[in-house]
Amino acid sequence: MTLDRHAPEAEIAKAVGAFSNWGRWGEHDVLGTLNFLDEAKRRQGAGLIRRGASFSLSQSFDMDGPQRGWRRRTNPVHTMLDTGVEASLGIQGFPHGLGGADDVIAMPLQCSTQWDGLGHIFDHGKAWNGRSAAEVVTSAGDQVTGIEHMAAQVAGRGVLLDVGRHLGEGGELPDGFAITEEHLRSTAAAQNVLVGRGDIVTVRTGQLARARREGWGEYAGGPAPGLSFTSAGWLHGTEIAAVATDTWGFEVRPNEFEHAFQPLHQVAIPHIGLLIGEMWDLDALAEDCVADGVYEFWLTAAPLPITGAVGSPVNPVAVK
Amino acid sequence: MTLDRHAPEAEIAKAVGAFSNWGRWGEHDVLGTLNFLDEAKRRQGAGLIRRGASFSLSQSFDMDGPQRGWRRRTNPVHTMLDTGVEASLGIQGFPHGLGGADDVIAMPLQCSTQWDGLGHIFDHGKAWNGRSAAEVVTSAGDQVTGIEHMAAQVAGRGVLLDVGRHLGEGGELPDGFAITEEHLRSTAAAQNVLVGRGDIVTVRTGQLARARREGWGEYAGGPAPGLSFTSAGWLHGTEIAAVATDTWGFEVRPNEFEHAFQPLHQVAIPHIGLLIGEMWDLDALAEDCVADGVYEFWLTAAPLPITGAVGSPVNPVAVK
Amino acid sequence: MTLDRHAPEAEIAKAVGAFSNWGRWGEHDVLGTLNFLDEAKRRQGAGLIRRGASFSLSQSFDMDGPQRGWRRRTNPVHTMLDTGVEASLGIQGFPHGLGGADDVIAMPLQCSTQWDGLGHIFDHGKAWNGRSAAEVVTSAGDQVTGIEHMAAQVAGRGVLLDVGRHLGEGGELPDGFAITEEHLRSTAAAQNVLVGRGDIVTVRTGQLARARREGWGEYAGGPAPGLSFTSAGWLHGTEIAAVATDTWGFEVRPNEFEHAFQPLHQVAIPHIGLLIGEMWDLDALAEDCVADGVYEFWLTAAPLPITGAVGSPVNPVAVK
Amino acid sequence: MTLDRHAPEAEIAKAVGAFSNWGRWGEHDVLGTLNFLDEAKRRQGAGLIRRGASFSLSQSFDMDGPQRGWRRRTNPVHTMLDTGVEASLGIQGFPHGLGGADDVIAMPLQCSTQWDGLGHIFDHGKAWNGRSAAEVVTSAGDQVTGIEHMAAQVAGRGVLLDVGRHLGEGGELPDGFAITEEHLRSTAAAQNVLVGRGDIVTVRTGQLARARREGWGEYAGGPAPGLSFTSAGWLHGTEIAAVATDTWGFEVRPNEFEHAFQPLHQVAIPHIGLLIGEMWDLDALAEDCVADGVYEFWLTAAPLPITGAVGSPVNPVAVK
Repeated sequence: MTLDRHAPEAEIAKAVGAFSNWGRWGEHDVLGTLNFLDEAKRRQGAGLIRRGASFSLSQSFDMDGPQRGWRRRTNPVHTMLDTGVEASLGIQGFPHGLGGADDVIAMPLQCSTQWDGLGHIFDHGKAWNGRSAAEVVTSAGDQVTGIEHMAAQVAGRGVLLDVGRHLGEGGELPDGFAITEEHLRSTAAAQNVLVGRGDIVTVRTGQLARARREGWGEYAGGPAPGLSFTSAGWLHGTEIAAVATDTWGFEVRPNEFEHAFQPLHQVAIPHIGLLIGEMWDLDALAEDCVADGVYEFWLTAAPLPITGAVGSPVNPVAVK
Repeated sequence: MTLDRHAPEAEIAKAVGAFSNWGRWGEHDVLGTLNFLDEAKRRQGAGLIRRGASFSLSQSFDMDGPQRGWRRRTNPVHTMLDTGVEASLGIQGFPHGLGGADDVIAMPLQCSTQWDGLGHIFDHGKAWNGRSAAEVVTSAGDQVTGIEHMAAQVAGRGVLLDVGRHLGEGGELPDGFAITEEHLRSTAAAQNVLVGRGDIVTVRTGQLARARREGWGEYAGGPAPGLSFTSAGWLHGTEIAAVATDTWGFEVRPNEFEHAFQPLHQVAIPHIGLLIGEMWDLDALAEDCVADGVYEFWLTAAPLPITGAVGSPVNPVAVK
Repeated sequence: MTLDRHAPEAEIAKAVGAFSNWGRWGEHDVLGTLNFLDEAKRRQGAGLIRRGASFSLSQSFDMDGPQRGWRRRTNPVHTMLDTGVEASLGIQGFPHGLGGADDVIAMPLQCSTQWDGLGHIFDHGKAWNGRSAAEVVTSAGDQVTGIEHMAAQVAGRGVLLDVGRHLGEGGELPDGFAITEEHLRSTAAAQNVLVGRGDIVTVRTGQLARARREGWGEYAGGPAPGLSFTSAGWLHGTEIAAVATDTWGFEVRPNEFEHAFQPLHQVAIPHIGLLIGEMWDLDALAEDCVADGVYEFWLTAAPLPITGAVGSPVNPVAVK
Repeated sequence: MTLDRHAPEAEIAKAVGAFSNWGRWGEHDVLGTLNFLDEAKRRQGAGLIRRGASFSLSQSFDMDGPQRGWRRRTNPVHTMLDTGVEASLGIQGFPHGLGGADDVIAMPLQCSTQWDGLGHIFDHGKAWNGRSAAEVVTSAGDQVTGIEHMAAQVAGRGVLLDVGRHLGEGGELPDGFAITEEHLRSTAAAQNVLVGRGDIVTVRTGQLARARREGWGEYAGGPAPGLSFTSAGWLHGTEIAAVATDTWGFEVRPNEFEHAFQPLHQVAIPHIGLLIGEMWDLDALAEDCVADGVYEFWLTAAPLPITGAVGSPVNPVAVK
């Protein structure tokens, strides 16, 4: 697939025309490609729990994160309402030696490891399934496709495509590397793993490992390896339920068009109805997959059912 | 087990003496009874995914929750940074028709469905494993047993004990009903399910169903059915990994002692090292268990790895 | 002025037609009636500082406030980032005995004593001065009339009209009492004080004193004494710069029309361009005014210049 | 006054011994040097309102501020609960054409223009007036000297010492410039202004003007001009009520001792009981003072009465 880098809007329109799932699950659908993740897929996934080893795919949630304020996105601010220090001094007002600690958090829902909900991205004023963006997501939140609808869904078969290790040096793709359908297929083949309908696919680029070593730098919004715009057909055609990367923005950055901003999102979320995960930490899992040669696993990645949210922090747990 | 209702401090001390797990997993332990949840247990749990049906055990996270301000606990405040309304007007500054919505949240970590971390409760200035509460949980958070250490652990075999349905009228225990070891055992027997080492046990009282029907009222902190202080031995002796209820405070309220406050917490968290879940929504799962007679399942209930947190919101997902 | 209680929209339109200030200060105006508060008025106000006694007209900002969650308005949540407890233990990492405490707050801008900015209320999609509400206040905030434009303005002559004391029993008007132009004039006359162009007028109903004695109850949004819709002409004709009350909502509640919501706001903010203060604590000042018979003073009530805010917490300080 | 740069703890102790105000206003004092700001001082200040021109000395409160996350201090996050966009679409649920916008903020109390309260800094576990820091400021806030006690106090005579213009090039002192007592005196003399008991003194370094021109860089915590540790005697001896600068940290940075952190704070707040303002914007006022040669004015700088706060955002308003 060749891309006219000077014609983003036309290319986006072409992809939209080819890969739209609008209406596929009826006019009232609120799940998008999660419809592909059915009970049979969960049964298949269950069979992948062989050793019982579990892995968290979540980054930390704290002030040492990558956010730098873009569009008012901060790192999470976690503060204590009560602490053990007061408890040890007996000044909390509880009887009989009881002490307690409590805490609060203020954070963007997309500050760290996260899901993009279906209400996160629009194309020309249209949200998932052809609805009016203005009617779906108001100041009161997502009135139709809030992430709470996905509360019970995201548990099934997970697959890791470690493109960083397959194609990168030292397990890391360079910033600006656009991962194409061919790269995805060759990685799957090299890893001897199949990707199919209803899978939750995680794509490791290695950028997080680099950021961990060298500092966040421009991890949040700067140059990064990521999915090529041309992978839209693969994302659509494989009928996967969800996809997640270890990068801030899922797709390659700088984006492949002149003067574009996250064009693959513009196709994938409102038109394909695809659940996209970002800033996942795939490194420990990837080490294990190299060691045992098995790149598939049971995966639960349940969003917090925040009513009307267009995204959610998540702690995905893979079990092999 | 009889209880001297006029001697809370002595009874607590007696329970502590009998049921402490301090040192059981070494002086550096940060997992408590999650140590019981091992790979073998996960393999056993995997075998319980038979149909592939999944259930979220989470309440909603929104302003319609039960919190009324006690100890500065509010309901979650979810606000939008961008919306579809602006996107539809094309005033967001993105090129080529892209639009986006983003959101933030401010909430206590224990505002809705949650885990109590090991740093949540202290006894006479001591935290889990005998550490000084003052050294463990400061204004900077839990320096030792923060919930992030549990990020990968909480996936295994879940069991539902529907005490509300077994012993209550209309499936609901009345407020003030103290669930004893005998009640737990008789419910398990009636349901034909075993509870053992490493299990994540959920106890349904029916109070949430009542609150859903009648309004929150004093759900947050008021009278409620819940575990009896006398169940401490069962919590300890069964060697379960975690326990969760559909109530605000896990244990029966009013508490069974005169002038006490959450005395079972005081034994269970700092001494047994038990992970306690509160405000879980067990109703849909319970309906399914009644229907198929199966009260065990695969359960993932992964806390958000908020560095240094003494609790975490959670969306537990059960799969049968 | 008689009011057809069954025709709110017509009555509002009539008031709008009679009392609009659109265009009065040019098409680019962002100050509304604050334009009346000029340097001469400040010189006049300065002459009112006779004794040097100062009064804060602010309620507290804490969890014991009146908010109950309406439209996601909570009481302020104030938490500590560091405390003296840690400082006393020497565990903060500062050298040479230095210790520190820091804090954060999360709050609606209209949770306690406040100003309503010009972007707070709209009439049929129109904001102050005839602008499109949609173009003025987006998810990014008030793009035109943000409260920051008023940062330097709100200092001048203040007047207290203690209607509660003049017309109420025990200094308090009953809930539902509609304060008319005649009430305002008779109070001013009884107090021997003039109200004129550029003044900041504070109107005491006594409801806050009642709430302080009896508990908040429905202070936030429930029945209250307040300005009558029919006072719109007085608010416009006196050419005052701002007006504030000791109630949640400034105007009488229940509102005087069937099925209306804050109709006086709908005239006063977008059409008159009037700065409105709510939840001010006028009681200590009122006691002093009774004592010395002087109901005018220097008043500074500077909003925090939160960029794009449609309201602001404020600590008004009166000096006599 | 010479300083042994290698003996911070001894020098601090020496200054504490010389300049302590503990007990000066009785054991129950919660105001510190604000006690110097009496009614006579306010009458004097009132006489300085000659033209009626008013100036806000506040920086903006928004995401474009200087904070970079140090000790969990972020820039303010301001979000909308409702907007004019929804109002214009008529989807807010209000009758008769009413529309509304509301907003919330989450911010450290010391994120922008601010007062340090008396509970902000401790010396060897002691807070203002010799109290135990552990008993004064807990997780529940400042139990004794919360900023709410100052709600009505901070209105009086203000003085600007434009040291940047007097001694700097282009009106700006370089980073690291330590402003001594001699610099303060010579500036006052050159400006023909007296500083005395009860004054609120603002010291302009010019660093904010530089940051405005060149970007924030390390404004929050990095090198800066500021008060010399040796100015402690002047701060004490002049009996001023408060002092504020246009810098992040009030005192010169790097601090004048090896391995010290804000040693002048350690003397000024807990021992002198001095109210310190930081990040004030003195530039517009300074331009006016140059123009008319008058460096004194009426100043109101009322903190928000956040119960138990150890600091407060503030919009100081000067009137000449």
